Formats: sequence, structure tokens, C-alpha cells
Amino acid sequence: MKEKPIVGIVMGSASDLPVMKKAAEILKEMGVLFEMDISSAHRLPDKTAEYAKSARGRGIEVIIAGAGIAAHLAGVIAAHTTLPVIGVPLASGALNGEDALYSTVQMPPGIPVATVAIDGAKNGAFLACSILSIKYPEIEERLAAYRDNTRKSLQGQSEQLRNELLAENLISG
Amino acid sequence: MKEKPIVGIVMGSASDLPVMKKAAEILKEMGVLFEMDISSAHRLPDKTAEYAKSARGRGIEVIIAGAGIAAHLAGVIAAHTTLPVIGVPLASGALNGEDALYSTVQMPPGIPVATVAIDGAKNGAFLACSILSIKYPEIEERLAAYRDNTRKSLQGQSEQLRNELLAENLISG
Amino acid sequence: MKEKPIVGIVMGSASDLPVMKKAAEILKEMGVLFEMDISSAHRLPDKTAEYAKSARGRGIEVIIAGAGIAAHLAGVIAAHTTLPVIGVPLASGALNGEDALYSTVQMPPGIPVATVAIDGAKNGAFLACSILSIKYPEIEERLAAYRDNTRKSLQGQSEQLRNELLAENLISG
Amino acid sequence: MKEKPIVGIVMGSASDLPVMKKAAEILKEMGVLFEMDISSAHRLPDKTAEYAKSARGRGIEVIIAGAGIAAHLAGVIAAHTTLPVIGVPLASGALNGEDALYSTVQMPPGIPVATVAIDGAKNGAFLACSILSIKYPEIEERLAAYRDNTRKSLQGQSEQLRNELLAENLISG
Amino acid sequence: MKEKPIVGIVMGSASDLPVMKKAAEILKEMGVLFEMDISSAHRLPDKTAEYAKSARGRGIEVIIAGAGIAAHLAGVIAAHTTLPVIGVPLASGALNGEDALYSTVQMPPGIPVATVAIDGAKNGAFLACSILSIKYPEIEERLAAYRDNTRKSLQGQSEQLRNELLAENLISG
Amino acid sequence: MKEKPIVGIVMGSASDLPVMKKAAEILKEMGVLFEMDISSAHRLPDKTAEYAKSARGRGIEVIIAGAGIAAHLAGVIAAHTTLPVIGVPLASGALNGEDALYSTVQMPPGIPVATVAIDGAKNGAFLACSILSIKYPEIEERLAAYRDNTRKSLQGQSEQLRNELLAENLISG
Amino acid sequence: MKEKPIVGIVMGSASDLPVMKKAAEILKEMGVLFEMDISSAHRLPDKTAEYAKSARGRGIEVIIAGAGIAAHLAGVIAAHTTLPVIGVPLASGALNGEDALYSTVQMPPGIPVATVAIDGAKNGAFLACSILSIKYPEIEERLAAYRDNTRKSLQGQSEQLRNELLAENLISG
Amino acid sequence: MKEKPIVGIVMGSASDLPVMKKAAEILKEMGVLFEMDISSAHRLPDKTAEYAKSARGRGIEVIIAGAGIAAHLAGVIAAHTTLPVIGVPLASGALNGEDALYSTVQMPPGIPVATVAIDGAKNGAFLACSILSIKYPEIEERLAAYRDNTRKSLQGQSEQLRNELLAENLISG
Repeated sequence: MKEKPIVGIVMGSASDLPVMKKAAEILKEMGVLFEMDISSAHRLPDKTAEYAKSARGRGIEVIIAGAGIAAHLAGVIAAHTTLPVIGVPLASGALNGEDALYSTVQMPPGIPVATVAIDGAKNGAFLACSILSIKYPEIEERLAAYRDNTRKSLQGQSEQLRNELLAENLISG
Repeated sequence: MKEKPIVGIVMGSASDLPVMKKAAEILKEMGVLFEMDISSAHRLPDKTAEYAKSARGRGIEVIIAGAGIAAHLAGVIAAHTTLPVIGVPLASGALNGEDALYSTVQMPPGIPVATVAIDGAKNGAFLACSILSIKYPEIEERLAAYRDNTRKSLQGQSEQLRNELLAENLISG
Repeated sequence: MKEKPIVGIVMGSASDLPVMKKAAEILKEMGVLFEMDISSAHRLPDKTAEYAKSARGRGIEVIIAGAGIAAHLAGVIAAHTTLPVIGVPLASGALNGEDALYSTVQMPPGIPVATVAIDGAKNGAFLACSILSIKYPEIEERLAAYRDNTRKSLQGQSEQLRNELLAENLISG
Repeated sequence: MKEKPIVGIVMGSASDLPVMKKAAEILKEMGVLFEMDISSAHRLPDKTAEYAKSARGRGIEVIIAGAGIAAHLAGVIAAHTTLPVIGVPLASGALNGEDALYSTVQMPPGIPVATVAIDGAKNGAFLACSILSIKYPEIEERLAAYRDNTRKSLQGQSEQLRNELLAENLISG
Repeated sequence: MKEKPIVGIVMGSASDLPVMKKAAEILKEMGVLFEMDISSAHRLPDKTAEYAKSARGRGIEVIIAGAGIAAHLAGVIAAHTTLPVIGVPLASGALNGEDALYSTVQMPPGIPVATVAIDGAKNGAFLACSILSIKYPEIEERLAAYRDNTRKSLQGQSEQLRNELLAENLISG
Repeated sequence: MKEKPIVGIVMGSASDLPVMKKAAEILKEMGVLFEMDISSAHRLPDKTAEYAKSARGRGIEVIIAGAGIAAHLAGVIAAHTTLPVIGVPLASGALNGEDALYSTVQMPPGIPVATVAIDGAKNGAFLACSILSIKYPEIEERLAAYRDNTRKSLQGQSEQLRNELLAENLISG
Repeated sequence: MKEKPIVGIVMGSASDLPVMKKAAEILKEMGVLFEMDISSAHRLPDKTAEYAKSARGRGIEVIIAGAGIAAHLAGVIAAHTTLPVIGVPLASGALNGEDALYSTVQMPPGIPVATVAIDGAKNGAFLACSILSIKYPEIEERLAAYRDNTRKSLQGQSEQLRNELLAENLISG
Repeated sequence: MKEKPIVGIVMGSASDLPVMKKAAEILKEMGVLFEMDISSAHRLPDKTAEYAKSARGRGIEVIIAGAGIAAHLAGVIAAHTTLPVIGVPLASGALNGEDALYSTVQMPPGIPVATVAIDGAKNGAFLACSILSIKYPEIEERLAAYRDNTRKSLQGQSEQLRNELLAENLISG
């Protein structure tokens, strides 16, 4: 795997950072180098287009774009690159992300956006890793290991629940 | 009023023409010259940006943009011009325009799109006329005349209804 | 540009003021004189009709109307004037603005309302400026300058983000 | 009961007649005199206001208003009279009446609209009869008789169903 | 007007009282005597049926029923009486009243519920007064007076707003 | 298993029969005796209550209730019996079953309705069989056999698809 | 009734416990033995499948599954057993349970999930008891007793309300 | 690029074939070998799990899963593989794909599904190609060529539109 960023994370506004930083943390945990920037389909359209057009040439292999309300960011980026673009609809404003979900996922034929759950920045990063795993076996291994850890952690929760139920006398041994 | 187009109508696909042509017909009826083209925020992003950037310079004063599903067209045009941009969300696909409505109207601060009803191409044209009426008194007059005609037509419908109810014996004279 | 108000801001209730004042602040920032009043399509219908009918005569060129729940205000005003009417659906009540959005945007042919986002009072003002910009070149210049400033501000956010990511060791220089 | 109309049925457009005529038929069946007209909150606002203001004086006791999409008609009428106003949201356009329902029912405090189901013109008439029944005992009797007939008709359907199931061998005697 | 309750207010649970008490306060302000009780379409179905069946005989002329979530209360009451039944859908649970609105308003032909806004208990009372006003002229007068007061109060808000804007230097005298 | 009906199918109107008959067909196929009737929470409330109250005494063990729009039928039945009540929300009217789904599923604590998919009459019958299977081993066996057949049928579809794709040259052997 | 668990409660994550514990409390109150565990259709798919496949053999007669957002848990369990499976859609994430409701209730023919209200864990338990009541008469008795208590409690609330209204002078004795 | 399938297309039922075949046609056009099968998260859960678990070993690099209503297929597959899984929500049943969209996209952290538009089978294939393009340069080239052709085709539509408008005399040369 290359020693420079292969994932680009873009968000429409600094206010999206608390959610989108979760994608950064997962990528770091998975050992995937990334770059992260603020751009906006509406307020910085030329920078956004330029970012997308130059991404593959700069070595980027997957782009994760997070935006709320009308949420055109992922779609506009996808219009300017053939790289896989992951869209994270963000919950903000009165419609709480239903608008962002529709704006991100309902793309016309030819220009897909790989949409994850509303505020699903973590899954944006995991999906990027799944995509990269077809090329980088070490990412596949880390994903598999991560899932193993999740299973163990859930198994621990399961045991803790049993003890809690016994303690509260809701079940008997 | 100038002898060249002052309104630009843009739609995302040729399949949008049956609805968007209604805007053209109203503008023609109101004596407003216009141009009309197909562009796409996703499949022709550079043409779309160029169209928007050059519009004011070419004499265009209002842009009407119709698009369905993710419906980024009006928003992307608004990102590249300070002209008033009217968005017509089009009913297509499984969500029947609710997606296009949200994608068109929920724009971020600074980049407004003047959104009309789903499939409301006629109102896109009427709104363009209202906007132009602040500058061109003849358009104000035509709008007022049009409304007068509408009132008379509705009054005619009202009389016809009364006759129909009498004929069906639902009311008595 | 005239030395008297050319934009009228109307809202349905004093409780709408915190949101609608943002429109006033943008207009002031853009150097556009405005008037601002409370009226109600339901509780002051005659005042509302009179307001709309007299607006053009008083020199008003654009009306911005904000209302929540059933949100008939913008539509009722549009019924009484051929001026461009901008509707700001306000988030209030159990449906949080979805009702106000539908009530504002789904107008019948002939009587358009230029609808902006739910609680989008700022964009109501920006849209008013775009409309006025077709007549007043100085407003076009201020809009363009405002967008330049937005771009610079976002660029600053972009740099700040990079520093924050470096500081948190999420990326390396 | 007076020998002149005591219910007013109003609709926003001649295209609403097929649904709204069902209200007329029920009223006729219940022996309630009514008037019926086309008005429009947006295209005939002054006629609509005048209609509402003069209704009580003309002997009208209940108004039934049917309208689709933004559906301001019932609310605008209610703004101009203290008579009970029944709103029938009509299914039309891309949102199929969800917009009309919200626009009709979500009225602000002080100006209620008695809303019935989408396209529920029949129930608009039945509700008018229920309201009138507090003043006119003969209407109460007819409502009660109508319900009796409904029960008998449903009982007949019940027997018919049993025979059909037996004939198709889905159940045995 | 009789010296005993002519309006019955019913709610599905004690937790609905904070909203439904607003109906009681309006009725008291309008001088309309009422009774108020808790019943439940699901947990006290026989009491609810009995309440509805006996209402007209006890002198009740309008019933106001408030319920949340599946909100069958108003419909079940309407099934057992020909009196006008007003339904107040209450915002509770995850769907925040959208479920209660649909359950209350979408009644089948023959059994209407006069539905008001979600949490619109005040309008439930005002609608009851409008209905009663066709029989009791003094209620019509009080409704008219109440609307006059509302207009004056809004006019006062209008002046206060003007002073506030002047003080904040948003407009000039 | 008893030689008399143990499942009761009820629907609100004869127009619901085409959908609800599918439940009958599944039950017949599974060898479960049933009764089937039309009742209505709104138009036959006393019959409905009586039906529910007497059901367990008559040997009924599960009730399947199908209704559309406000869809109170299943809830009203559940209010009068402790038997398991399965609700089938039916798609009808402008909201196409979303109203019926909410009215059926959002029941208050203590009075559950086991809700299946909109128009899911077949699953209403399968759920009844699952419930009965805890008491009648022969029903468990038939359910298991039915699932086996489904799997075989899907496997057949899978092979047919492969042949079709080969024939159309979309894949190669 | 057997001296070992006959109901299985499963939830997708430890964060679902505060809601799902209400099901446990009702079951305990009704004297029904249960087991309770954390599994996940997505993160522990094999354990979930194994849990479902082995349930009937282990003596489980009803399964209650609670999950949020995409909420596949109940459906995946139903795919692996012919036991009755009750689904409790949980309110979490931006869509607040509407997603979980659709994912739980809209199951394909043959594999039903008995869905209760969003966050309706109590009703999940009551429905389990209704189902068990067709086999265990003592559960039927406890359900009937519980409903009696509910009725008495509501009657108490009714009297308390009356006193409160008298004390506040909203009604007179 | 390998001479065996690298994309797997799975659908929940043979009735999904007309939509999902569009994905196959795009992949064929792009020269990407694929396999295509019917499986079902609910009716063939073990086959589905096995399919997913063995996919990477069999050389599959991307899975496209299409399903309607509760639409668990993509999520269940994603639970059993770390390969990128693309979900195509299909419009079927009363909710017309809104249920399938929520069920597909709202996945929990760790198990992402790359969701495309409702009925967006074409975009499922294009997204698969974008993903594969990070590894196979020839796919990148074909994607770029496809986009070029789309642009040319739209440009042709643009000229045709101009001629049509001239012919209808809506614009002048």
C-alpha cells in the first residue's frame, strides 16, 4: 500500500466535522492513509470540481463525501471522477437528514454515489476499506480482524447482560 | 425589453421536455424571449457550470432549471451565478418528486434556489415573469391581464357548474 | 436604488421573529432597505390582502413571507400581487416544517411562490437580492463580493481543519 | 329547517367537481339544501373572502371547502367567518393529497378547519349533517336512519360472503 | 344556552391532560359548559362506547376527543353517536403525531371525525364553539369578539416589532 | 386439532375481500379451519365488539383483521379479547396503506396488534399458523414442509434464470 | 407451564437494553419464564441463525426481537424458525424508528414478523402472552386480570381528573 | 482482468429480474464478467450466507444485491463478507421502495451497504465498475469512454431540442 493518502474525505462545512471525524478515526485505525478537506458543491463549486478531477491523478482511490440538507457534494464530485464516491448524508436542519439521504442516493444512471446511512461516517470509512480490500490484502485482513473483535465485544456484552438480569432477579440461573 | 432571450430554461434530460415545455409556452404567451437547453449537473457538469457562469453576460436575467430524482441542476447553476435561479422539481422515479423537491429547495445559506411546485413548470415561468416585472412594466401589465382572464374563466366555470347542478336536479333554481 | 424600502418582510406571528430577523440582517448587510411587519393569512386576512395589494404602489419590489404549520401567508400574499413573493416555510409544531414546506411550495398554476428551505430566512434575503440584482447593478456587485468572502472564509476553515488534524495526529504533514 | 340553502360547498377548480359532487349527493339524500360554487383562494381571493364574510348573513350554517395541492381554500374561508368550515383535502399532483391534508388541517390557534379524509367529500357532507343535527332534529333522524341502512347493507354483504366462501369450498357449512 | 355541559372532552390517558386542558380553558373563556373525562378506545372500550351512545341524551352537543399514536378514540366515539365529534391527534411516541393524525382523519365514509391540527386542542375548542354558534347566538358573538381581540393583539405586536427594529437600527424611521 | 374453526378472519368491507381471501387460501392449504366475516369498527361497532368478546368462547384461537385507511378494526378487536390479534393494514385511498399501517401497529401498551406488511394477508395466515404451531405439532410440520417447497421452488427459479442468461448470451457457460 | 424459559428476548445491541428490559419486566409480572440475549443480524449472523434454529428444540415458544435502524434482526430470526417471532422496531438514529418499522413489518410472503409499535417492547411481551394464552390457561387468566387492573387504574385517573378540574374551577360540581 | 466472474449479482426473487437485468447489461457492455443468481435473505437464508461467505474465495470482488420491501438481502450478504456489497432497493409493494431504501441504507456501524437509487440497477453496475477501476485500468478507460459517449448523446439531444423548438415556433433562430 502506498505511503500517501489513498482516501479523500470531503465535507461541505466545518460544522460537519464532528460527524465526519469518525470516518477519519476508523481509517486511521485500519491503517489507511487519507486526506481531509472542506469543500462545498455550492459555495466552492470550482474547487470541488477541481478536487474531483484531480483525485485519481493524485493517487486517491476512494472519496468519502459528507453533506447535509440539499447535499449535492457527493453527486457533484461523482460527476467529475470515475473513482468510487461514497456519500454520507448528514442529519441537519428541519428534515434531519431525510433530505440529504434523498439528495445523495437518488442519482441518475451513469453517475452513482455509494450511499451509507444518515450520519453513517463510520460506515463510509468501512465501505472505503471494503473497496480497497479488493486490491490491498492487508486491508482485507484488518477488516476481518475488526469484525472478529466486534464479535468478541458483543459476546462480552451478552455475558454482562446475563449477569445484570440475574442481579436484578429478572431471570434465575 | 431586449430583442434577445432574457430567460434561460434548462433541463437535465430530454425526457423532462414534456413538462418543461409548459414553461416555454407561458413565456411565449407573455411575450418573453427565452432560450432552452438540455444540460445535466452530473453528466455535463462543465457545460452546466459554463452555462451558469456566462448567463448574465449573455443577457439572461432569470434561469429556470427543471430536474428530477436527486435534482442537483438548479443548485449547481445557482452556485455559479448570482442571477435568480428558479428550480422546478420533476416527478419521476419511485419517490415521485419528493426527492427532487428536497434536493432543490433545501439549499444552504448564500445559494438560494427559488423553488416552485413539483412539476410546476408553468409556475416557473410565471415566477420568472413576476421577477422580470420589477424591471419591465409591460410584463407587469401582461401578468395582470393574465390574472384577469383567469378570474373570468373561473367565473365562467362557476356559471357552468350552476347550470350542471340544476340540470342534474341537485339544486333548484 | 431608491431611498425607501424595496423589500417587504412579513411574518405570521411574533414568535417567527427570531428566524425571520436573519433575513433582515442579510438585507441590511447588502444595503437593501426593507420594511418588516407581522400579518397573518388567518387572523389578519384583510390587512394581509391590503398589504399585498398596495405593495407595488408603495415601491416594494420583492416580498418575503415567513410562516409555519399550514403556512398560507406567502400564498395569500401572492394571490393579491404580481410582485415576486418569496416563501420561507418555518419549522414549528409536530411536523417541524414539512407541513409549512408543502403549504408554501405546492401552489397552483398562475400564482407561484418562490420557496426557499425550511427556516431558510437568510436565503429568502439572498434570493431577494438576486432578484433585485437584475435591476440594480450595485446589488449584483455586493452579492458577488459576499460570495467571494464566503469562499475565503471556507478556505480559512479548510486550513484550520488541516492544522487540527495534524495536531490530533490523524494525518501527517 | 329553512327552505333555502344552509350548506355551502366550495371547490378551488372545476376539476375538483367529480370528487366534490359526492358531497352534494349525500346532502341531497339527507334532505339538506345547499349551494355549490367554484372559488379559489389564490385565483379569486376577493370573491372567496366575500363569499365567506357574507355566508352567515345569507343563511349558510356550514361551509364545506375542497381543494388540492397547497389547499388554502378552507383556511382562507375560515379566516373570514366564524361558521364551522369543513375542509376536504383533495388528492392531486405528485404528493397525492398529503400536501393538501397538511395545508388544510395544520391551522393556527383560533381559526380551525374541521378536516376530513383525503378525497373524503362524502364525509364532509356527513359531518355537515352531524353539525346541523344539533339544531335540526329531522337531520339527526335521517343520520340515524342512514346508519341503520348501512348496518343492514353490511349484514347483507356478510351473508353474501359466507355463500361465496361455501361455493368456493373455502369453508364448509 | 343550557345550564349544563354541552361539550364533552375525552382523552385516552391522563398523560394527555396538559395538552387537552387548553381546550377546557378556551371553552371556559367562551362561557361554554363542558364535562371532561379519561376514557380509552382500547383499555376502556365499553365505557367509551357507552359514553358516546349516551352523550346526546345527556345533553352533550359536541364531543372533543384527544388521543395519540394509533389514536382510535375519536373514531370509536364517532361510531357510536351521530353528534359532531372533533378529533385532536396528539404528538407522542416516535412518529410525533403523524400516526395519530392519519388514524384520526382517514375515517371511512359515513363516520366522519372533524380533525384539527396535531396537538391542536385549542382549535378543538374553537371548532366546538363554531359548531355551537349555529344554534347559540351568544357563542357567535363571543367568537367574533375573540377574533377582534386577536386582531388587536397582533396589531400591538406589529407596533412592538417596529419599535424593536428601530431600536436595533435595522430600519430607520 | 379441533374440527371447527380456530382462526377468525374479519375485514372492514366487502371491497377488502380480494386481498383477504389470500389469507383464507393459505389457511385452507395448511389445513386450518377458519371462519370469515365482514365487520367494521366504525359502521358495525357493536357486532365487532361482540365478535371479539365471544371469540375465545367459540373456540377461536387467533383472529386476523384486515382494514384500510384509518384501520381501527384490529385494534378495536384487540380491545375486547386477550386472544392474539393479527392486523393486516390494507392499501387503499390516497395514502396507499401508510395510514392503515400506522393505525394498526402503533397500539398503546397493554393492547398489542401483531401487525404484518401492508396488504400482507398471506403473512397474516402464516403468522396465525406459527402461533398455532406452538400448540398443534401438525401445523408446525406443514409450515416446515411449506418452507421446504418454497426453497425448492426458488432453486428452480435459480436454474431457470441461469438458462435464460445463457440463452441471452449475458453470461457464458 | 414448563419450569424453563418459553420466551426468548433478543436485541441487536446493548444500547437497546433500556427499552427491551420493559418486555422482561412484563413477562416477569405475568409469570412467564424467559431468556434474554444480545445478538445481531449483521455483526453476529451465525449466532443469530443458530439461536433461531435451535429455539424450538430448546423449548422456546415465542421470540421477541428488538432492533433499530435497518432492523433486520426479527426478519433474520424468522427466516430460521417457524416459531412466532415478534418484532419491536426501536427508535434510534435520524429517522427515529420509521426505518426500523418498515424493515421489520414489510416482510415477504411466507416469513411473517408480528410487528408491534416503535419502541413497543411492553406490547411485545403482552403479545407473547396472548400467543401463549392459547396453550396456557393460566396466562389467559393473568392477562384478563391485568386488563381489569388497567381499567381500575384508568377509572381512578378519571376521578382524580374530575377533582383536579373542580379544584381549578374549570368545571363546577 | 481475470477470465471468470468478478461481480456477483443476486436478487431476492425472480420477479426482480426485469430491473436487475439492467445491471447485467451494463456489466456486459463494460466487459466485466459476472454471475447472477436468485437467493433470498428470508426464504433461502443458508444459501445466502453460504453465497456471501464463499464469494471472495471464488474470485468475486463486488456483489450487487437487489431486493424490495423489507429488503434484507444486501445487509445479510454484507454480514457474511468483507467484500464491497452494493444494495439496489427495489420499488414494489405499497410503499414503492421507500421501505427497501431504508432497509438497505440504514445499516449499523461496521457492516456498510453501498446503496444506490431505488430501482437503480444500472448504477449498481456502474458503481461496481468504479470500484473495480481502482484495480483494473481497462475498466477505468471504459468508464471514461462511456461518460464521453453520454456527453455526446446529450449534446445531440440538445441540438434536437433546438430544432424542435424552432419548428414549433417557440423560439426564433
